[in-house]
Amino acid sequence: MRPSGRAPDEMRAITIETGYTRHAEGSVLVSFGDTRVLCTASVEKGVPPWLRGKGEGWVTGEYGMLPRATHTRGNREAARGKQSGRTQEIQRLIGRSLRSVVDLKALGERQITLDCDVLQADGGTRTASISGAWVALRLAVDGLLRDKLIKTDPIAQKIAAISCGIHNGTPVLDLDYDEDSNAQADANFVLTGDGKLAEVQATAEGATFDEEELLRLLRLARIGCNGIFAAQDAAVDKVRAA
Amino acid sequence: MRPSGRAPDEMRAITIETGYTRHAEGSVLVSFGDTRVLCTASVEKGVPPWLRGKGEGWVTGEYGMLPRATHTRGNREAARGKQSGRTQEIQRLIGRSLRSVVDLKALGERQITLDCDVLQADGGTRTASISGAWVALRLAVDGLLRDKLIKTDPIAQKIAAISCGIHNGTPVLDLDYDEDSNAQADANFVLTGDGKLAEVQATAEGATFDEEELLRLLRLARIGCNGIFAAQDAAVDKVRAA
Amino acid sequence: MRPSGRAPDEMRAITIETGYTRHAEGSVLVSFGDTRVLCTASVEKGVPPWLRGKGEGWVTGEYGMLPRATHTRGNREAARGKQSGRTQEIQRLIGRSLRSVVDLKALGERQITLDCDVLQADGGTRTASISGAWVALRLAVDGLLRDKLIKTDPIAQKIAAISCGIHNGTPVLDLDYDEDSNAQADANFVLTGDGKLAEVQATAEGATFDEEELLRLLRLARIGCNGIFAAQDAAVDKVRAA
Amino acid sequence: MRPSGRAPDEMRAITIETGYTRHAEGSVLVSFGDTRVLCTASVEKGVPPWLRGKGEGWVTGEYGMLPRATHTRGNREAARGKQSGRTQEIQRLIGRSLRSVVDLKALGERQITLDCDVLQADGGTRTASISGAWVALRLAVDGLLRDKLIKTDPIAQKIAAISCGIHNGTPVLDLDYDEDSNAQADANFVLTGDGKLAEVQATAEGATFDEEELLRLLRLARIGCNGIFAAQDAAVDKVRAA
Amino acid sequence: MRPSGRAPDEMRAITIETGYTRHAEGSVLVSFGDTRVLCTASVEKGVPPWLRGKGEGWVTGEYGMLPRATHTRGNREAARGKQSGRTQEIQRLIGRSLRSVVDLKALGERQITLDCDVLQADGGTRTASISGAWVALRLAVDGLLRDKLIKTDPIAQKIAAISCGIHNGTPVLDLDYDEDSNAQADANFVLTGDGKLAEVQATAEGATFDEEELLRLLRLARIGCNGIFAAQDAAVDKVRAA
Amino acid sequence: MRPSGRAPDEMRAITIETGYTRHAEGSVLVSFGDTRVLCTASVEKGVPPWLRGKGEGWVTGEYGMLPRATHTRGNREAARGKQSGRTQEIQRLIGRSLRSVVDLKALGERQITLDCDVLQADGGTRTASISGAWVALRLAVDGLLRDKLIKTDPIAQKIAAISCGIHNGTPVLDLDYDEDSNAQADANFVLTGDGKLAEVQATAEGATFDEEELLRLLRLARIGCNGIFAAQDAAVDKVRAA
Repeated sequence: MRPSGRAPDEMRAITIETGYTRHAEGSVLVSFGDTRVLCTASVEKGVPPWLRGKGEGWVTGEYGMLPRATHTRGNREAARGKQSGRTQEIQRLIGRSLRSVVDLKALGERQITLDCDVLQADGGTRTASISGAWVALRLAVDGLLRDKLIKTDPIAQKIAAISCGIHNGTPVLDLDYDEDSNAQADANFVLTGDGKLAEVQATAEGATFDEEELLRLLRLARIGCNGIFAAQDAAVDKVRAA
Repeated sequence: MRPSGRAPDEMRAITIETGYTRHAEGSVLVSFGDTRVLCTASVEKGVPPWLRGKGEGWVTGEYGMLPRATHTRGNREAARGKQSGRTQEIQRLIGRSLRSVVDLKALGERQITLDCDVLQADGGTRTASISGAWVALRLAVDGLLRDKLIKTDPIAQKIAAISCGIHNGTPVLDLDYDEDSNAQADANFVLTGDGKLAEVQATAEGATFDEEELLRLLRLARIGCNGIFAAQDAAVDKVRAA
Repeated sequence: MRPSGRAPDEMRAITIETGYTRHAEGSVLVSFGDTRVLCTASVEKGVPPWLRGKGEGWVTGEYGMLPRATHTRGNREAARGKQSGRTQEIQRLIGRSLRSVVDLKALGERQITLDCDVLQADGGTRTASISGAWVALRLAVDGLLRDKLIKTDPIAQKIAAISCGIHNGTPVLDLDYDEDSNAQADANFVLTGDGKLAEVQATAEGATFDEEELLRLLRLARIGCNGIFAAQDAAVDKVRAA
Repeated sequence: MRPSGRAPDEMRAITIETGYTRHAEGSVLVSFGDTRVLCTASVEKGVPPWLRGKGEGWVTGEYGMLPRATHTRGNREAARGKQSGRTQEIQRLIGRSLRSVVDLKALGERQITLDCDVLQADGGTRTASISGAWVALRLAVDGLLRDKLIKTDPIAQKIAAISCGIHNGTPVLDLDYDEDSNAQADANFVLTGDGKLAEVQATAEGATFDEEELLRLLRLARIGCNGIFAAQDAAVDKVRAA
Repeated sequence: MRPSGRAPDEMRAITIETGYTRHAEGSVLVSFGDTRVLCTASVEKGVPPWLRGKGEGWVTGEYGMLPRATHTRGNREAARGKQSGRTQEIQRLIGRSLRSVVDLKALGERQITLDCDVLQADGGTRTASISGAWVALRLAVDGLLRDKLIKTDPIAQKIAAISCGIHNGTPVLDLDYDEDSNAQADANFVLTGDGKLAEVQATAEGATFDEEELLRLLRLARIGCNGIFAAQDAAVDKVRAA
Repeated sequence: MRPSGRAPDEMRAITIETGYTRHAEGSVLVSFGDTRVLCTASVEKGVPPWLRGKGEGWVTGEYGMLPRATHTRGNREAARGKQSGRTQEIQRLIGRSLRSVVDLKALGERQITLDCDVLQADGGTRTASISGAWVALRLAVDGLLRDKLIKTDPIAQKIAAISCGIHNGTPVLDLDYDEDSNAQADANFVLTGDGKLAEVQATAEGATFDEEELLRLLRLARIGCNGIFAAQDAAVDKVRAA
């Protein structure tokens, strides 16, 4: 039995609110249950120094968590003077995941930064970030296409991410904080709209796991990502229809 | 004529949404027009080292701005590895303002941290932060009283803050970003519920000003703060009634 | 009764020693009683990146305090690896105050940095810094005019600063450390030679204050600044006459 | 055809030289072809603050790369003043992997730090680090058992790690730098001596991958880890026999 | 011929002004020609963590240079966020030199910090710092003896330092900036009152040197230090007589 | 009697293993007894900003110590976020020493960085670094000459370094860690192949020393450096002959 009473393959409620802030080229407030992340896509001319002159663009991610997004207040990273290893690991994952579905040549010499800031945390903040950031990116790129700044759509696929884990011996989908802090194993999957894998990160927390368990977690992730893809489509369609 | 079409003594719409996040002891999303700040109050046992053993508490503020809260994306302070002088100046102001209405003895040996994070910026983020932080503090202290952790209410007064400025030669109330970036002088006032001053910060931007102008700005600030006090009361009453 | 025995509107002895160091284009050792600050003006070609190509100059301030300028030794900021919020707040104030009387266009594409280093502290270091820095700036600009590097004098006005406060219920002028650490309210005023205000920073320390008190503090500040203007004139005249 | 001429399931030569340095409680120079990593295990009394008083130990990893371990010289992280996100990600992985086979209770209140410093890099430095660190840990723990500082062996299993990837469309084992920089996908597996998984990190580099490919990479990893386990056994046996 | 017209074994004028600042337990403004350094000795209870409980004291040095102490303005180390290698090298030398004549046991569990801040630089700032710091230390220790906080004088000897160098092929004493920047070799000597050596740092700048030259530099240093010892004695005697 | 049983003028065994790593233009593993340092020379086009356009090259050194090179584990400087004063002092010495025998004009606009990383420490790591770095530099420059990238050999002399000290009242050569931590005085000498001095750094540790002792230490250093020069020659000849 899961602490939340959910079935093993049951996601939390997903909401994707577009246009949450007005300055960003794409802006989304994504919620997976009580986990709430503000994702913005910022389009800027130019690329990092090591890419200059190659006619390619760049997509990158940054991640932060407000000090009181969590049960107990955490230190503000800006005040401590550095980002934690966890933060850096997550923002590298966000950038890598989104680049895996973007044709950087088609983007031209511009950079899109996906800022994912966690307003409230209840497990799964990195996967919510990726799932929401894709929508922000999609909306920002729609703007570039609409303004004829780029000719061909550089986004090849949708991308979504979800965490699964083995909790009380049972593989379960979409861990919340209570489950996450007690899981024997924890896996984050990043899947594309055509069912391919962009990233698998499975970690033994209290007990190692076997190949069969890995595959069962992947199967749950497919269920979860299908739900996320639907929510992404709905959010994008609503904006496009407006 | 103001860019927004407002009268010189006209505030933007104020909204104070309580309970915006669930973990903090007090949590408020405050909006002054398009300026939107998430203020949380976190109560923690213990005080900073230099206060230990004195039987007093501490109230402090921290301030941050999401990278894309503004028209163009700013660097993330956590990534740059330090807080800007502006950020530090603002968070010192927030803490000082709130402490001016709190009896630290009555609070006991605990610290309340007011985190003010700007989700969207359109001028006046520091004054919105103070005005919202007071409500978050009020709600957190209500909880301490309700749980009988403290006996007497340590909050002596309401506190509110507003920016005024001289724009196109006219003193105006509650500057938005357009006005703020073109003001000849800019003043932030922090007032208490009984009409006293907790802080005055008036700065010549393009032209120095005289005593009469300072007083006219203060008069506008009184009008503005009265509106904020009413919104604070309404927000607190609604929570207390629930 | 003030701890120092001074009358409420009585300044400490002011001395402004020019030419204290020989390398800087302008160099002043300013004393307000036991507060002693070395102010140097350094003229450099070029301006910060964000000003390049606009044909304008820049005036900025930096502030530091020697570790044993105070009663008990403070940490060296260079060793700690960062400047405190207080230091940054003060140096922003110094730069802003001096820029308020300088025509940056007339300065041409050069930067003048005012370094204010406190050798000994007894209250009022930031206001002494501004008052002394103006003389260093004036002397450096005199040199630019003499060398015909600029044609018109970019300095429009004298500028002086002084702290006032409410001590034992009485508004007093030019707080020393003893008074400053016990004041109910503390206000720094930056005034120009023609009686205008460049900056007002009034803060409740132990008790909030009212409009009337603010005005009484301003009136004291006018008295103090008149004394400082006279000392500035004398110091500049002596150099010019040499 | 692989650049090195190896068969798809062919590892590079592995050597594990024990006792490479004399101060550490366990010390190993591990080579996977031209990748060479010095792994030391340091045993220290006490644990990090957040573990104190729980009667448990801690195992952690640190990772570094000498500036000229690579084809072109990289900046020294100590000189830049911070560890890169990549470094932090790797050292978190090293610590997590080793902890997955250690009973921290049985270790008692002591910390073992595995320092993995890359002397020469040719792909697979993180997996070589984990594989070598296990031997250093094993030798350090053997010392603790020999000195009767702990009673029961806290190490439950061997652990080994290897990278696999899809190169020119073919899944291959133990990528060297040439392959790694051109792989379509890249996966690091951490396996235990009993065939369980401690960590899976699979990443699309140029193309997403499917479930079947993930499984083929895992099958290659099993082949590789069996070879590593044999080398680990031989290295440990040789020391124990001496 | 030296740029200054001095004879090869001729020092610049030395002045040692005691009581330059009033808060420090010892305070000295030392000048070697145009090089001017403010040295303060601060006595604090307690010692660094690694010395606690041993019944010994500690003597340490810190060094800084005001940004415009030099011909062209240097960056403020506090603003850059770190002390340069040169600064650290100098402050380590200051501390080591002074400790070589102090009996730390006799000092008891207290720390004396010698802050040496260069107000104006014209070569030889590190040697002036050591020479001046000794006087500040002497005065601070006199105070401890006078207040009967320690019983026996922990200072065994005077200590003085001077730079010599080979300029235009000639060994010369007490290099100023012009000479220092053109010297073929440069040597700093720290000597004790009884003619012993506490530190020798000789460096080839443009040409290596031989043993004979080293000895000639040392002979010059003895001449110079005798002058410094006399100035130190005079300064201390004057304070003691007061 | 020395702890190691060596005669006062007896060096530890020196080995210089060339080609220890394959990427660097010059690579040497140097051992002085149990002190083992990996020295690599990296040749890069271009020079630091302040040298650009002068047609000169630059030679610089960097130094590091692996955390467990020593008896007890030290903190990793990259993790602490800054290099210690000791590290900076040593790397400044390495660069200065090597530059003293290199004609930077003849090197052309390129930089050679000598990275000296201590794998195992038993005293004398800075002198072993210099002695080994010279061989790495020699081999890298041989490559530049062979590839006709430079025409004339910019290296004027061999350079070697050794530490001597006064231990139990006796001057001894090549201190190991046991001696170093108990020496009364400690001196590092950097000598050139023609018997000149590039650097002398002599420090009183527990007792000051006199001129005669300094000269006896220098005499020991000459003996030691002759041995190092022979080992350097042998190592270089072997590579050239291959």
